Amino acid sequence: MTATTNAVGNIVARYRLRVDESRVAERAEMIAIEQSVEMPLAGVRDAEILENIVGKVISVEPAAEGGFEARIRLDARTVGGDPGQLVNMLFGNSSLHEDVSIEDAEIPKSLLDAFGGPNHGVDGLRKLAGVERRALTCSALKPQGMSCAELAALAHEFARGGVDFIKDDHGLADQDYSPYRERVRACAAAVRKAADETGRLTHYVPSLWGSFDEIDARLDIARDEGLRVAMMAPAIVGASNFVALKKKHEDFAFFAHPSLTGGGRIAQPLYNKLFRIFGADAVIFATFGGRFGYGRETCRGIADGARAPLGALKSAMPAPAGGLALRRVEETLDFYGADTMLLIGGDLLLSERSDLARETAAFVRGVADYGHA
Amino acid sequence: MTATTNAVGNIVARYRLRVDESRVAERAEMIAIEQSVEMPLAGVRDAEILENIVGKVISVEPAAEGGFEARIRLDARTVGGDPGQLVNMLFGNSSLHEDVSIEDAEIPKSLLDAFGGPNHGVDGLRKLAGVERRALTCSALKPQGMSCAELAALAHEFARGGVDFIKDDHGLADQDYSPYRERVRACAAAVRKAADETGRLTHYVPSLWGSFDEIDARLDIARDEGLRVAMMAPAIVGASNFVALKKKHEDFAFFAHPSLTGGGRIAQPLYNKLFRIFGADAVIFATFGGRFGYGRETCRGIADGARAPLGALKSAMPAPAGGLALRRVEETLDFYGADTMLLIGGDLLLSERSDLARETAAFVRGVADYGHA
Repeated sequence: MTATTNAVGNIVARYRLRVDESRVAERAEMIAIEQSVEMPLAGVRDAEILENIVGKVISVEPAAEGGFEARIRLDARTVGGDPGQLVNMLFGNSSLHEDVSIEDAEIPKSLLDAFGGPNHGVDGLRKLAGVERRALTCSALKPQGMSCAELAALAHEFARGGVDFIKDDHGLADQDYSPYRERVRACAAAVRKAADETGRLTHYVPSLWGSFDEIDARLDIARDEGLRVAMMAPAIVGASNFVALKKKHEDFAFFAHPSLTGGGRIAQPLYNKLFRIFGADAVIFATFGGRFGYGRETCRGIADGARAPLGALKSAMPAPAGGLALRRVEETLDFYGADTMLLIGGDLLLSERSDLARETAAFVRGVADYGHA
Repeated sequence: MTATTNAVGNIVARYRLRVDESRVAERAEMIAIEQSVEMPLAGVRDAEILENIVGKVISVEPAAEGGFEARIRLDARTVGGDPGQLVNMLFGNSSLHEDVSIEDAEIPKSLLDAFGGPNHGVDGLRKLAGVERRALTCSALKPQGMSCAELAALAHEFARGGVDFIKDDHGLADQDYSPYRERVRACAAAVRKAADETGRLTHYVPSLWGSFDEIDARLDIARDEGLRVAMMAPAIVGASNFVALKKKHEDFAFFAHPSLTGGGRIAQPLYNKLFRIFGADAVIFATFGGRFGYGRETCRGIADGARAPLGALKSAMPAPAGGLALRRVEETLDFYGADTMLLIGGDLLLSERSDLARETAAFVRGVADYGHA
């Protein structure tokens, strides 16, 4: 190939290696090769490829948590502008190595700009919700198995309680017991009815599954019902789909669900940062103290990655979830601050149906009464 | 919801739990809930949902490998006929639990039929290659960074050597240094030119990345060049995309690349079985003794899952890879048998370019001379 200037920049990825010190240099070198040319260097004949395309180990240091941390430079040109290929180049084959995880990656401006980040971001979600300073509130429609009418009745109660957003449980797809189109119509009507009663619109956020074309059509159905926010799980629908859908439906804001992101081989804060880069306006994650057991440090990393400056990208709203309860609102806001969306689902649904709007209102009031307001 | 007969059947998933015996019953129950209704059962009011939609622990037994194995029944209706949602229902949220992995899943016929499996399968790949009994052979174009002309020159040498398939390295996408359209044209022309010389066509297999629409268009480009086989990484492009593309392009056979499937939280044999169900005609995986280090038992499970009877689905060809070398052909065929596609990339590329066709021919001859022929 012809030599080029490094026009699009470098990725610098941080890998954690759980190996003996005697082997760490060799293993770091192997990762650099695996995540770039994926072949013995003795077979690479081109000096420019050896110089630039082959990954380069920048440093190897002992990690505070044990093992070693290797920083490796990858040429951003290898990504070819595709979000899925970015994931592939960061950790595709190395995911097969049990002793390696990826902790973080600096993504150059060229790729940040190509993927574009959130359509609306923190400020846009605030505008949608009509909330200036306090944290945002969200609940969830579940369990799956309920009919559309039953889910819509739940949505009506949540909306009467004044919650900002109501998302589908991420298990809701296009099942026979609550087909997508019928569900969206029923739940959108339910939040409009509640708005007529309360004077304030709660946003219903449907969960989207399927191929690109199916999700594309489902977003059109949601728009026809006046909806402006939807949820996807980028690790399952595919990063490239997520970005393409986000760009095509730029009037929509998107919640990113963390389904299938676990296991710790891709650090959760990195996953959530990538979701923001791909276009998540809010990143849902399992907060500390709930039923998933992330540590506070991981949660801090997730929140920072969602909101820290990142090129020209809008910031995303961290959405702590996964077993949050009313009694933990204050502790959660102490930790995350105001630019946060609290998601309480199951804990509210434990109340009697006749109490649901009142319990929801207590949740919203708890957030509003917190010092941010 | 109205009570229905269990028309579409059950999924039975096997999870491995690394917990103390005192907690295992509770943890199994938690997984059953997490992978179905995802909320406290006290909040579920509908008897039919409690009875059928909520996951049910069938058994919990000590596992030979340590920890416990829980078999959990999930209602296939929760999948709503979507491949991504199947992944979500099998392991979406439980992936966030460090102490859980999923080892296997029995998928009911309704879903097998809905997703449809391979377009062509083992027999179809044999027909494409014109090979009746021996194992199939495959090599790989790399490193990325080479121009289209250079990659095509490599393809020409491999094809002169008589290999059955030449796949793109899975790092090849649509990079500036070898844009997809130009690469496909050049490599397709190179294998046609070699066929004019040798009388036998080698199939060039491009690597596909992007959103559904991008891959869809790239398959049309490949078809225009006379190609019949392509490769995707379903864990990155998304299961639903993969199935939709496979169905739309039923004249094509598909290789599934294992990028991002590692970490052991979803057992490799299950991943590969799912890829077959979704439509992989060949499943590429890292064989024992190479640079990835799966054990023989895992490799056996992968090969069995690809080829064992599975509803009405065609079988898929296991494609051991990841550091295979000429000297390991016999050992590899001893282990996997004839319905296998051996993939040797880097080891061939270590030879001088002037020797590449001859080395490739030695690989093909080694496979042909093995007892199967």
